[in-house]
Order: sequence, then structure tokens, then C-alpha cells
Amino acid sequence: MPQRAGEVRAVSGTLFGVGTGPGDPELLTLKAVRAIAGADVVAYFAKRGNPSNARAIAAGHFRPGQIEEALDYPVTTEIDRRHGDYKSQIAAFYAEAAERIAAHLEAGRSVAVLSEGDPLFYGSYMHLHLRLAPRFPTEVIPGITAMSGCWSAAGLPLVQGDDILTILPGTLAREDLTQRLCATDGAVIMKLGRNLPKVRAALADAGRLEGTVYVERGTTAGGFSMPLADKTDDTAPYFSLLLVPGWSTRP
Amino acid sequence: MPQRAGEVRAVSGTLFGVGTGPGDPELLTLKAVRAIAGADVVAYFAKRGNPSNARAIAAGHFRPGQIEEALDYPVTTEIDRRHGDYKSQIAAFYAEAAERIAAHLEAGRSVAVLSEGDPLFYGSYMHLHLRLAPRFPTEVIPGITAMSGCWSAAGLPLVQGDDILTILPGTLAREDLTQRLCATDGAVIMKLGRNLPKVRAALADAGRLEGTVYVERGTTAGGFSMPLADKTDDTAPYFSLLLVPGWSTRP
Repeated sequence: MPQRAGEVRAVSGTLFGVGTGPGDPELLTLKAVRAIAGADVVAYFAKRGNPSNARAIAAGHFRPGQIEEALDYPVTTEIDRRHGDYKSQIAAFYAEAAERIAAHLEAGRSVAVLSEGDPLFYGSYMHLHLRLAPRFPTEVIPGITAMSGCWSAAGLPLVQGDDILTILPGTLAREDLTQRLCATDGAVIMKLGRNLPKVRAALADAGRLEGTVYVERGTTAGGFSMPLADKTDDTAPYFSLLLVPGWSTRP
Repeated sequence: MPQRAGEVRAVSGTLFGVGTGPGDPELLTLKAVRAIAGADVVAYFAKRGNPSNARAIAAGHFRPGQIEEALDYPVTTEIDRRHGDYKSQIAAFYAEAAERIAAHLEAGRSVAVLSEGDPLFYGSYMHLHLRLAPRFPTEVIPGITAMSGCWSAAGLPLVQGDDILTILPGTLAREDLTQRLCATDGAVIMKLGRNLPKVRAALADAGRLEGTVYVERGTTAGGFSMPLADKTDDTAPYFSLLLVPGWSTRP
């Protein structure tokens, strides 16, 4: 924005997109810790009425006097995600959240937006980044992804050498999943929830059921992993995932 | 191993597979720092005659008196990777490296094996993990992957929602690459080197040249990113990569 003669304009604050990692506060990076502790404002997404997971991971590094901005998602559980009402409500929410952050940046305050996992990898922060990075100085600090936390907790070597890795949502159709599982070395399947029976069938169709590991609540207390073949029920929280190891040529 | 009567056996040390992240020492996790500083032995891979990148990232956290184990790859540059001689030399090297680490663990010393990026994601540590995790208490500490460091440095939102992400080696045939690029939302293409002209052609065939970002030396000093379409030469170090963003439905 061009500056008018005589106008005194504050230097903009910097926007930090900060990855908090998958849940264990020890999996914050040194860089994330410094950005969180040094920011004038700390912002985080949460479902209305619920505590923010990202805030819980990072809170040990907040300083007294820091401004907190809770960005509460609108309640949309009764609206179909493909419906226009859902899309317009969510778009309005992100636009409003971006303007709340922009007001701080314009006033010269630095803002750390906390993002579970890695900010630019399936993260809500991406919606703010699109709107704000063209307008303000921005730095993205990567975080440990949930999938990385899960294969580490399970101690499962995933891919090596020239392996192909495919990251798939469990929402795909069974035949599509099967075809993609046949065409890859390693795979990670996310968004299980009620898709688990279908995903299990696709893995069996592709001959990949054996070796597949189910991980629930990856790096948090009470988390566990087990061979999918040993899991006798089909209940899976939305944030569980499946690891299909590649590296078939392992020595 | 069963303990014989009268035998005094030390409690085994713990093996830590420690991800050091992609290069910036600030991208170490708090957990990695504690494991590095607390271990009796720190081990790392390197090419013979070259300093270890993983050691350089972590060295600020070494303590005086720690034992260092440099695991130097055998010189194999003159041998074809598909040749039996290469495979047998590399297998012998990993077996010998594992036994050097095992000797420390058997004597009750904890060992942190440093691994650039994430230990179980295309990491050399995986070869030690396979051989040692069944015998000794083991903990894997995830690290920021090179690709995550790269899309963060480039500020490039990669995948969102139900996007499919495919991680591809540039060593694949042009037609295979094209087909896979047509069938995915986002992609990361690694192992460029002399494969870049072929990869560029495959991206053009798939209509994905536009939007693709080239990243060299991701998170290290002198690193940079640029649209691949603007890169007029075809030179690319082996550890450069291409980011093909998904999220085509972005608002």
C-alpha cells in the first residue's frame, strides 16, 4: 500500500506459521519454541467449546502478557460439507480470522499462528497463509507431521531408496484405493473413522493387509499401534491412521 | 537371551534413532536435543573423507567426553548400484556398523544414531533399526523431513482436505512419472540430479509444469526456491527437489 505524505505508518509485524508437531510437547523444534515465546500474539484454531490441541502442546512456552487469539470454528456439524452453506460459512470464518490477525500485524505486533503437525501439510494455517503472506512478512516453521510421529512411535521403517510413497484419504472409493495401493510401495491412509471397513477391504483386495499397522493417538499418552490384521473391531477415531510399509527389497 | 546361572550381565543401553531435521540446527526437536546430550555414544553416517551433515547439525549439543562413532560408507562410486558387488559391500558395511553399535548397547551404554531428516523416512538409520531393534530397547525420535523444510522455506501450501500426495523418485521412467502426476493432487519429486530434463518433460506432459516449484538446499544458508518454469538450465544437485502443489480447490 503506498504511503501518503505526512502519514505515520508502523512497520508491520511478522506472521509466523508455527508447526507444533503431533502432540508430544517435546516434539516442538527449538525454532518453534523461540517463535512462540517471542511473539506478541499467539493465535490458534479450536472447535467452539473445545480446548485447542495446538495451544495445549505449546502453552509451556507462552510468556505472561502475551495476547491470545482463539480462532473458534463455526459450529457446522449439522451441515453437509459439500453444501454451499457450509462452504460460505467456512470461507467467511477464515476471512474474518485473517482480518483479526491482520489488525495485529498492521499495528506492528508479531503473530505466531500455532498449527498442529506441519503448517503447510493439511493444516488450517494454510487458509490464513493464502490471505496474509502476500501482504505481510511471513515465516513458516515446519513441524513434525502426525504420520511421522506415528511411524516413529510404531518403530516401523516406511520407505527407502527409490520407493514411492502415497498419502491417501480413507474417503476414496474402495476400487480407487485398491488400485492406488497396488501401484505404490509405501502408503499412509488418513481419515479412517467410519471408512475403516472399506479401507480394510481395499487393502485385502490389493494384497497389502499383511504388514499394515494401525496407529491410534500417535505420540500422545495412551497411544498405541497394532497390526491391522489383529484388530478385530472396526471402530477408529478420525485421527487414527494406517501405515503400509514399502521397502519390499529390504536386506 | 537367557541368562546363565552365575553370569553377571549388564543392563542393555537404549538405542535412539534421532532425526536431526533437514539442516538448520534450530529445526532439532527438544526431544532430539535431550537424546543427543544425554547419550553415552553418538553415532552418525558419512561418506569416507567427508564431514557428516547430521553431525554438523547436532554438534552444538554434544557433551565433553561423549564417545563418537563415525560410520563411514565404503567407497563405491565406481561400482554400479545394481551390481552384486555393490550390494554385498553395502550389506557388509551395515552389518559391521550394527555390530559396533551393539557392542556399546551390550556394555550398557546408550547410543544416539543421528539421522538427517526423519529416521524412518528414506533414512540410513533404517538399516541399523532392522538389525538392532529386535535385540535392544529402542526409541525413534522423528525429525523434520527435507521436503517439509523445503515447502516451508518456499512458503508453498502443498495439500489440504482430501488431497492425495505422492512422493516420487526422479529415477522413474518419463511415462510412469507422467501417469502418476496425472493421478495425484500434490507431488514431491526427489532425486533430481541428471533426471531433471526427463522430470521436466513429464511435468509438461501431465500439464503440471505451471505451479511447480524447484527448491535447492532447502533450509540451509544459500538455499533458494523458484518456479521451475523460470529455471532455464537443467543442472540440479542430487538433494534438490520439486514441489507440485495440490489443493486445486483452494478458495
